[in-house]
Amino acid sequence: MSGPHTPEVALSRQGDSSMGTRDEDAADGIQHSHRMLSFSDALLSIIATVMILPVTHTEISPEQFDKSIQKLLATRIAVYLMTFLIVTVAWAAHTRLFQVVGKIDDTLALLNLACMMTITFLPFTFSLMVTFPEVPLGIFLFCMCVIAIGAVQALIVVYAFHFPHLLNPQMERSAHRGLYRRHILGLVLRGPALCFVAAGFSLFFYPLSYLLMATVIFLPYVSKAFSWCKGRLVGPQEPPAHSVEFFTFDLHEPLSKERVEAFSDGVYAIVATLLILDICEDNVPDSKDVKEKFHGSLVAALSVYGPHFLAYFGSFATVGLLWFAHHSLFLHIRKATPSMGLLNTLSLAFVGGLPLAYQQTSAFARRPHDELESVRVSCAIIFFASIFQFAIWTTALLHEGETLRPSARFGGREHAFMFAKLALYPCASLLAFASTCFLSRFSTAIFHLTQIAVPFTFLLLRLLVRLALAVLRALRGLGRPARGGEEDARAPLLPSAC
Amino acid sequence: MSGPHTPEVALSRQGDSSMGTRDEDAADGIQHSHRMLSFSDALLSIIATVMILPVTHTEISPEQFDKSIQKLLATRIAVYLMTFLIVTVAWAAHTRLFQVVGKIDDTLALLNLACMMTITFLPFTFSLMVTFPEVPLGIFLFCMCVIAIGAVQALIVVYAFHFPHLLNPQMERSAHRGLYRRHILGLVLRGPALCFVAAGFSLFFYPLSYLLMATVIFLPYVSKAFSWCKGRLVGPQEPPAHSVEFFTFDLHEPLSKERVEAFSDGVYAIVATLLILDICEDNVPDSKDVKEKFHGSLVAALSVYGPHFLAYFGSFATVGLLWFAHHSLFLHIRKATPSMGLLNTLSLAFVGGLPLAYQQTSAFARRPHDELESVRVSCAIIFFASIFQFAIWTTALLHEGETLRPSARFGGREHAFMFAKLALYPCASLLAFASTCFLSRFSTAIFHLTQIAVPFTFLLLRLLVRLALAVLRALRGLGRPARGGEEDARAPLLPSAC
Repeated sequence: MSGPHTPEVALSRQGDSSMGTRDEDAADGIQHSHRMLSFSDALLSIIATVMILPVTHTEISPEQFDKSIQKLLATRIAVYLMTFLIVTVAWAAHTRLFQVVGKIDDTLALLNLACMMTITFLPFTFSLMVTFPEVPLGIFLFCMCVIAIGAVQALIVVYAFHFPHLLNPQMERSAHRGLYRRHILGLVLRGPALCFVAAGFSLFFYPLSYLLMATVIFLPYVSKAFSWCKGRLVGPQEPPAHSVEFFTFDLHEPLSKERVEAFSDGVYAIVATLLILDICEDNVPDSKDVKEKFHGSLVAALSVYGPHFLAYFGSFATVGLLWFAHHSLFLHIRKATPSMGLLNTLSLAFVGGLPLAYQQTSAFARRPHDELESVRVSCAIIFFASIFQFAIWTTALLHEGETLRPSARFGGREHAFMFAKLALYPCASLLAFASTCFLSRFSTAIFHLTQIAVPFTFLLLRLLVRLALAVLRALRGLGRPARGGEEDARAPLLPSAC
Repeated sequence: MSGPHTPEVALSRQGDSSMGTRDEDAADGIQHSHRMLSFSDALLSIIATVMILPVTHTEISPEQFDKSIQKLLATRIAVYLMTFLIVTVAWAAHTRLFQVVGKIDDTLALLNLACMMTITFLPFTFSLMVTFPEVPLGIFLFCMCVIAIGAVQALIVVYAFHFPHLLNPQMERSAHRGLYRRHILGLVLRGPALCFVAAGFSLFFYPLSYLLMATVIFLPYVSKAFSWCKGRLVGPQEPPAHSVEFFTFDLHEPLSKERVEAFSDGVYAIVATLLILDICEDNVPDSKDVKEKFHGSLVAALSVYGPHFLAYFGSFATVGLLWFAHHSLFLHIRKATPSMGLLNTLSLAFVGGLPLAYQQTSAFARRPHDELESVRVSCAIIFFASIFQFAIWTTALLHEGETLRPSARFGGREHAFMFAKLALYPCASLLAFASTCFLSRFSTAIFHLTQIAVPFTFLLLRLLVRLALAVLRALRGLGRPARGGEEDARAPLLPSAC
């Protein structure tokens, strides 16, 4: 405050000019939805991932690890994956809803919070389903939650259409608003209606409820396939009104890239942090133990947990680098098609399983017999998480004109490097898996050291690509001494320090 | 893909035009840092908040709840607050660092991940410090982490200055870059240097280490106060070079509003989710118990946990509404001064304490004697969380020309409503606290029902303000029948449906 305040004024001016329109809106109590959406993304991604906890906290004592536990684990993992998909469907519905509703006011913000509160309750119903698969209460509560979410979303739609300035500009200007409203309400209430039936069945024949739940998850895909088949059989229908067709398109062109990134970031961040949560809870030795067993030496007590720390750093490096690959990939992507969205969800579901991999490898860290088994589980999880990322890339390449930036397309500057980056983890995990089969002395310690070493491979990759380019350039320079100007501009990028 | 693809093309064109420059940058392997920064914000906010877990998981059996446990709890809470502040300092340093470094490439992204990995390890050192306050290993590890973080940040600075196109444009064009580099390196390495000394002392006289750790936290404020005193005593110094002064200013004008929002969102999101985590872990009844105690009735078994669910929904409503107040507040704020940043941190630290409030109120839910005590703790936490939000508002009002948008300033349209919104929680929590003193029959159930009822007060508030405005307008309309045009434009905002 005592310093020279000219730059301050300059800065605030800058702020003013870019935010002039926001000032006006804020004055009317209408707000841009950006921040509310990122908050919702954060909440939803955490909720989707928290469900891995009942799986990782399955207590396995060595003598108990038989077929029944394996079956229990498998069931839990299956339900985790299913519920991850359900939350993702809720997230996708939320994304689409707020592609229609462009601005918010206080009422919408509060309604959105109510929606979030109901969604956070889903993991509990999931826990009930897992613990008591034969008691229909879990699935009943789940259906009630979905119905409540649907009701709140329907309220949001009705409210936004009642005050059209809250809608996105295209929708606001449209003449067919009444038609849209009915259409969107239909879409929003489709899932809850199915769940209503499922809730009814849960009272006397619950297996059907599970089936209906699965239908809710795959509803968008089912309906898309259905309309595709219909289109094939009957021939392409003429759109009854052009704008309605546009809107349908808008629903099938889902998921703004920004929100896909925000959701993915949330999942990666929470997975990285679930790991340290376990460390903090389980790996602080008891003060009595330290006195009695280790004669008061805390260092000795902690060294028992050595493998756990190694596993933690290894897992963090893996999560971090998977995020890094995802980040690099989406840097080159211009928009996310529905199929890419689905692949991204599958990849994230396996990323959410990484704490399990950590738990597996660290729980067996001192039981040599089961070590190989647990390393294999970890490899499989990492493999699936990364191969789905790779699949996003190949899917994007199929329509590269629409989906990719020029530099990442075939023949682009970054194409080869991007390919190498995304292929690294599938290859590395396959290699590790294979070595568990051939090398009997392959241990978790080696596995985690490999995990920690992978980041350097990334740097090495870039260095190698750069070196190859430099060699190529030198060779070309020998052949044609002219036209070096364009290449020189890129010279400072060459990491000369390394 | 089979539908009419004209809108698709139109959309991708739109994308092209706004992202033309990003395309070019991506081609060079240089990336805008936006997404990396929000990922870091998410990680840091989770790490800051996860540290409440050792506090909430302190097991308190009824007969054990004596002075010693209270003291233990108090120590843990103090260390939680301290560590929250430390992570916030790390976050602030990170924010400032990436205000200087404007763009990133792969190397910087990987270095940032290494930095994050070290920061995620901080909670573990915290746990060690809490569990073994007399063993210096915890503080030693903590110092090592801070040194490692400092080293990585120094590397980032050196790397970015080596490739100046990564710096922010102002810095890139400056002629005094060498000077800057030294200055920033000094700032980055100041904390780690202190920690190096602290690590040395931890080996033979650890209380001094704790003192030095406290110094690291308050270093920015200490140095600011010192320079202010110096300025008062010696008289305002002329800046040796104008641009250096500008840069110093840039460091004291901290924390882009966007990142403050992202960090706060992270804290609110994780706090809301820690609550459901506890529910999922603790409140799923054991299948044996259900068979033996409740004759197989899951509903009966769950009804025992009724108060827990009530407490959960109450807490979620509180967290959600505190987020809502924060969101409304920052909507009207144009920039966050350092003092507002500090107040925000303090508010968030108490928000992080809300799971503790939940734990307190739900643990004592069926022990009538301690109920009042636990409700008081909750009230106090909510009061502090909200009063610091209110303090942000009053601080902003002191310099309203710089910090607030016009509509929220004195006499602005939203001023009174904003005031009411922010005053609601301090008043409500004080009221609840007072009623625990006067009413002996005040119970946790009533408390949680109040929590759930507060959202409706928000809606009521807006309705009342609107009604008052409408009455005023009607009265004015009777007096002067002309000049109604401007007012009519706002009419659709009046929630006629309610």
